[in-house]
Amino acid sequence: FESKLPNLGTSIFSQMTALANKHQALNLSQGFPEFDAPELLKKQLNHYVLEGANQYAPSSGVAKLQQQIAALIARKYHNNINYEQQVTVTSGATEALFVAIQALVKEGDEVVVFDPAYDSYQPAIELAGGRSVHVALHAPDYKIDWQAVADVITEKTRVIIINTPHNPSGKIFKTEDINALKALVTKHDLYVISDEVYEHITFDGALHLSALIDPELFARSFVISSFGKTFHSTGWKMGYCVAPAQLMVEFRKIHQYVTFSSFTPAQHALADMLELEPEHVDELSCFYQQKRDLLSEALAQSRFKILPSEGTYFLLLDYSDVSDLDDVEFCQWLVEQAGVAAVPLSVFYNSASSDKVIRLCFAKNDDTLKCAAEILCQL
Amino acid sequence: FESKLPNLGTSIFSQMTALANKHQALNLSQGFPEFDAPELLKKQLNHYVLEGANQYAPSSGVAKLQQQIAALIARKYHNNINYEQQVTVTSGATEALFVAIQALVKEGDEVVVFDPAYDSYQPAIELAGGRSVHVALHAPDYKIDWQAVADVITEKTRVIIINTPHNPSGKIFKTEDINALKALVTKHDLYVISDEVYEHITFDGALHLSALIDPELFARSFVISSFGKTFHSTGWKMGYCVAPAQLMVEFRKIHQYVTFSSFTPAQHALADMLELEPEHVDELSCFYQQKRDLLSEALAQSRFKILPSEGTYFLLLDYSDVSDLDDVEFCQWLVEQAGVAAVPLSVFYNSASSDKVIRLCFAKNDDTLKCAAEILCQL
Ligand SMILES: CSCCC(=O)C(=O)O
Ligand SMILES: CSCCC(=O)C(=O)O
Repeated sequence: FESKLPNLGTSIFSQMTALANKHQALNLSQGFPEFDAPELLKKQLNHYVLEGANQYAPSSGVAKLQQQIAALIARKYHNNINYEQQVTVTSGATEALFVAIQALVKEGDEVVVFDPAYDSYQPAIELAGGRSVHVALHAPDYKIDWQAVADVITEKTRVIIINTPHNPSGKIFKTEDINALKALVTKHDLYVISDEVYEHITFDGALHLSALIDPELFARSFVISSFGKTFHSTGWKMGYCVAPAQLMVEFRKIHQYVTFSSFTPAQHALADMLELEPEHVDELSCFYQQKRDLLSEALAQSRFKILPSEGTYFLLLDYSDVSDLDDVEFCQWLVEQAGVAAVPLSVFYNSASSDKVIRLCFAKNDDTLKCAAEILCQL
Repeated sequence: FESKLPNLGTSIFSQMTALANKHQALNLSQGFPEFDAPELLKKQLNHYVLEGANQYAPSSGVAKLQQQIAALIARKYHNNINYEQQVTVTSGATEALFVAIQALVKEGDEVVVFDPAYDSYQPAIELAGGRSVHVALHAPDYKIDWQAVADVITEKTRVIIINTPHNPSGKIFKTEDINALKALVTKHDLYVISDEVYEHITFDGALHLSALIDPELFARSFVISSFGKTFHSTGWKMGYCVAPAQLMVEFRKIHQYVTFSSFTPAQHALADMLELEPEHVDELSCFYQQKRDLLSEALAQSRFKILPSEGTYFLLLDYSDVSDLDDVEFCQWLVEQAGVAAVPLSVFYNSASSDKVIRLCFAKNDDTLKCAAEILCQL
């Protein structure tokens, strides 16, 4: 049997969580919260299940959820989108990313990806017959050199995938980034897939700059978000995509044959949650900033160098003063010997990276974070 | 914007349900039950939501659900599969079909599809760079001429997609079909995608012949099923795929980047349901046979010719004595003027079909079925 993806194994997140469970380690690897979804959300879900909302939702989503998404976008980004034509609910942001890539990428097309990159982009591009072209960003600041991006663009380039706030680096786009991106994609007639799953988690008052804020940029964009990150419910696999109507037509053609629709009762419950407790979204940055600060402060006396995190629920640590191992070996050692699971940064790169950096997820209870920091301080 | 699927529109099921809602018609078009999921299943779902099982499941599925699927297969098909390596839970059978096709089909490959065919096969094949090759079956018996299948096989053929019990015709595979299929795929070294989402709905004592019953056939098969059909919960989008370990490795590589995992609390609840109320599955055929018989008998005095349904929850009607319209026009008329939504058969064919046949879904309350039949008897 000849594999279509011969170089691909099991995702690092699955691997590390399995290892963490095996070694009973504190799991700061895979990005999911240790705390539960809000009570109201769970209550509403149960209500709709009992009420019998258990058959197919419309393929694009339950109307009142599409409406609430549009309302949130109007409130946060002052963009008035048409909820019927421009919003599609998906089975997690992963499905939305996959479908957007399938909608855009044809045989031979090139897609610009910034490394470190989320692991699903490249296989999805390859399955669509495309080729990912990687622009590597590095510690400590992971700044995008837009001239370097311009240099990799060819006749075949079709899409640029951006991710802000950026997993794993925690960097967020600045106005210069948005402008540089816009200049490039309009000049070369490219499309943008904007992975914004951490849109509501930014720190120190920084604003999330969505591709939705700029009409010219949004005209060529698929904007993707995740309810799992926002509502501490990663296991519900609920996300969505927002795009101009004409692009959305293509997205929906594919979505209807990838999953058709998503868990109906959760769609109703999420609509209620957005409507009845809008403060949850507004308070999320503050909630996670406290966790980032707690972990950073607890690690201040360690031999790890803490890299700045402007958003997401991830923190990067430079361990070059702690160990000579490469990052994969170091994470292996860490989970087995120290009882802390982290993710090595090199797995997010297409070509070898020798940065000695690991990623910690701080979407954990304060006790877990303190406990992990205590262990790491002893190294 | 150049579409990758220029000839594709919105799925017939979405279209007809929207029309049915608009005209307040009895909706016997899209295949979903009018009755609710079992109480125990809903209760267990709510229990796991409250208990906090709301984060990512393992990408292949929650272990106890994989185990229960394996136990069901052992009980029904006497095949002892390895639940860890051979079962993957998916976001509905639609996702499983999509992923299996992506795993097998490479640029230029040909895939044999029997028309009338479920509408998701062909777009999934095209997105994988393959080409669907259609063998048309026709009313009244929709019998497969295996010589005709042999005739379309070329060097490029890679997969045969089968569907038994067959949507929309209600035909089920006989031993001869299994043997003919096995002979072909072993001779030409092909793979099988076996869509068995109606596996637990067969009538008049007929046995469902799964690709799982024959080791030689199963060695080259992805077998796909659906909890939505079995547990009246189409909106939960829960399905699964069973395959030999080596094939499953490929399936999982892709599944992890299409949706990663499926709604966690539902996985726990379905495992409990399979364990605690196995009789639900065993009684399903009987439950639906009564509905098939009710609808057939209520239509006996009509001018429609009723085609035999051996399984699924669909019944085909030949309307050639009722109207001269083609089937798309007739269904349009039916929903607008008569208040009954049905699906025209020609949309399941790749090339023009002039059979005057429509599909009714009888997964409806008895009153709905009686009411629809009354209307149809007046035509
Ligand atoms: C789908 S598992 C990966 C979760 C995640 O977003 C991450 O850890 O980066
Ligand atoms: C996913 S909507 C289609 C439902 C169905 O299986 C059918 O109507 O055939």
